[in-house]
Amino acid sequence: MPQFWWVNHKQTARQEIGGQYLWSPKTKSNGAPSEFYDNMRRAQPGDLVLSYADQLIRYVGRAADFAFTATKPAEFGDTGRNWNREGWYLPVFWTPLEPPVRPKDFIAVLGPLLPTRYSPIHPVTGSGFQSVYLAGIPEAVFELVVSKAALNRQALAHGGANSLTFEAVTERLDDVVERRIEADLQLEDTVKKSIILARRGQGRFRANVEAIERSCRLTGITNPSLLTASHIKPWRICSSAEERLDGMNGLMLTPDADLLFDRGFISLKDDGEVLVSPRVDRQDLRRLGFEQLAWERFGFAEAPAIWRTDVFAPPQYGYLDYHRKEVFVS
Amino acid sequence: MPQFWWVNHKQTARQEIGGQYLWSPKTKSNGAPSEFYDNMRRAQPGDLVLSYADQLIRYVGRAADFAFTATKPAEFGDTGRNWNREGWYLPVFWTPLEPPVRPKDFIAVLGPLLPTRYSPIHPVTGSGFQSVYLAGIPEAVFELVVSKAALNRQALAHGGANSLTFEAVTERLDDVVERRIEADLQLEDTVKKSIILARRGQGRFRANVEAIERSCRLTGITNPSLLTASHIKPWRICSSAEERLDGMNGLMLTPDADLLFDRGFISLKDDGEVLVSPRVDRQDLRRLGFEQLAWERFGFAEAPAIWRTDVFAPPQYGYLDYHRKEVFVS
Repeated sequence: MPQFWWVNHKQTARQEIGGQYLWSPKTKSNGAPSEFYDNMRRAQPGDLVLSYADQLIRYVGRAADFAFTATKPAEFGDTGRNWNREGWYLPVFWTPLEPPVRPKDFIAVLGPLLPTRYSPIHPVTGSGFQSVYLAGIPEAVFELVVSKAALNRQALAHGGANSLTFEAVTERLDDVVERRIEADLQLEDTVKKSIILARRGQGRFRANVEAIERSCRLTGITNPSLLTASHIKPWRICSSAEERLDGMNGLMLTPDADLLFDRGFISLKDDGEVLVSPRVDRQDLRRLGFEQLAWERFGFAEAPAIWRTDVFAPPQYGYLDYHRKEVFVS
Repeated sequence: MPQFWWVNHKQTARQEIGGQYLWSPKTKSNGAPSEFYDNMRRAQPGDLVLSYADQLIRYVGRAADFAFTATKPAEFGDTGRNWNREGWYLPVFWTPLEPPVRPKDFIAVLGPLLPTRYSPIHPVTGSGFQSVYLAGIPEAVFELVVSKAALNRQALAHGGANSLTFEAVTERLDDVVERRIEADLQLEDTVKKSIILARRGQGRFRANVEAIERSCRLTGITNPSLLTASHIKPWRICSSAEERLDGMNGLMLTPDADLLFDRGFISLKDDGEVLVSPRVDRQDLRRLGFEQLAWERFGFAEAPAIWRTDVFAPPQYGYLDYHRKEVFVS
C-alpha cells in the first residue's frame, strides 16, 4: 500500500522536479529534529507525492526508492546556503498535472480532509505553511487533488524505472563529486588519482583496506578477485581525501554484500553483529545466499536472531556509527 | 604449483611491459590455431614468465589473473596492424632482472634444458624463434635464467596485487573505449550517451534487457534494485552501438552473478544449462550462495551435474555462443 505525501517546495522546486528527486536537510538549522525531514526517511518506493509551489500543485511524483544520504545538490547554489551539507535524497519520478491545481479554489471541500496535525496548508484559507516540507496526507486528499486535472497514471506508475534506481542515481551523484575533485586546485595530481580510483574501491584505498580487513565479513571469502573494497562512510559523502583513502573506512565485500551494505540494507555494530534492515525482503536475502549462510554458520533450523562477525577495531567505530545512523535503512 | 613461461616479444615489448600485460591474437592471421596463442589461455594466476626481446631477458613477470578477451591495445599503433582486433589479454606484473640476462651466453648449459617441441630459442645457437610467442618452459630453465642476475622475489610475489585485479584492469580498458566513443564524430550525442550508460548496465540498454529477461537466471531474483543489466558479449568488445544497446545481448543478474559471468567463471548454453568453469573454486561458489541454490532447486544431497534455467530465444544465441567461446574460462 502506498503512502501519500505533500511537499511544499521552497525556492528549489525547479531543481528538484527537473532532477527527479526531493532533497532536504536531516535536521533544522539548530540541529533539532523535524517531522517533515524525518518523513523523507519514512517514504517508501511506490509512495505518491503532490508537489506544491507558488500556491499550485503542478506535479505528481512516485518515490522510486528509499531516501539515502547525499550532500546538498550543487544546483541549489546559494538558495540552500543555510542548510546542512548532508541531507536526505529521495529519488522521485515526477509527471505533470495538467492544468496545475490550485488548492485554494476548493479549500471548502479539501480543508476537512486535511490532517489536523502537520497539515501542509491552512485548512480554511488554503495558504501553504512555510514551515512544512514533506507532510503525510490521507489518500482522499491525494485523490481529490488529482481529480481536478488530468494525470497520466500509466506514466506515473512506470516512468523513470531504470534511470532512478539507486545504482543509477548514486552513479550520477558520484560523477558530480568526481568532477569537483578533478577541478580542485588544492589537490596534488597523485592524490586526485588515488581518490578517483577509490570511488570504485581500487588503488591505494583498496590496499589500505586489505591491510585491515582480510576477508568478506558476510561470506568469509578471501579470494581477492571476488572482493570489492567498499567504503563504510560512502565515498560521495566523505569530506576529505583522508576519509576517502582511509583503510579504516573500508570493508572487503563480495559484490552482493557490497550492494546490500551500500544500499543500507545491512549494517554492522562495533562488536561485529550484523544488522539487517526490516525493509529488506527476506526472500531476496535468502536468494542472495545470506540467510542460508547464517543458518549454516550457526547450525540453526531457523534464521538466528544474531549474526556476528569479528569485533571491529576502535578506529573503525566512527565510520560504522555513521553507517548505522545515516546509511542503514532502519 | 605455478607453471613457467617464456614470451618472445615482437615490437610491442615496451607497451606490454609498461602496461603490465601480455596481449596476443587468438589465432594466426589465416585463422589457424596457434600453440603459442593458446598458451595465453592456459596461463593461470601465479604463473611466472620470462620476457625476452632483442636477445635479452630483461623482465620477469607473474600472471595476476587468467587471460580474458580484449581488443588490441591502442598503444600498439601500426605495429599490430596485421593482427586481429580481438585477442587474449593476460595481466602480468613485471619486475626487472638486473642486469638483463643474455641466454646465448650460457646456451651450452641452457640448451639441454629447453623443451624439444615449441622451444622459444634455438637450443644450440641460442637465437630466438620469430614464430614463437608464449612458450611453456620447465622450471629448471626459469631458475637457471634468474640465477644469472638479481631478482626481487618479494616484489614479484606481491607486486601489482590490487592494480591488476580483473576489475581494475577491465575498468581501465573500458575507460579507453569510453574515451574513443566520446571522441567519435560519427555518433549522435544521444546515442553516445546511451552507449556510455550501457557500460554500467544503465539507461536504454537496461530497459532493452528488462523487456526480454525479467529475473536473474541464477538466483530467481526479480527485485530490480538488486539486479544489474549485464552484457553477454562484453561492452568493451562490442563492435557497434547496436551490439552495445541490444537487449538480446543482456542478462539481468545480481551483482555476484554478474561478476562470475563477466569474469567467465560461469556461462550458459542456448537451452539454459548453466556451465561452471572448472577453474572456479567450488568453496567460493558455495560461499557466494550458488551451490546451495542449485541443491535447493533440485533437492539433491549432492550438487547436481546439470543446473538449467529457462531456454533462450534464438536472437540471444549468437551472443551466448560468443560468451562460451571467448569469455568462459574453460
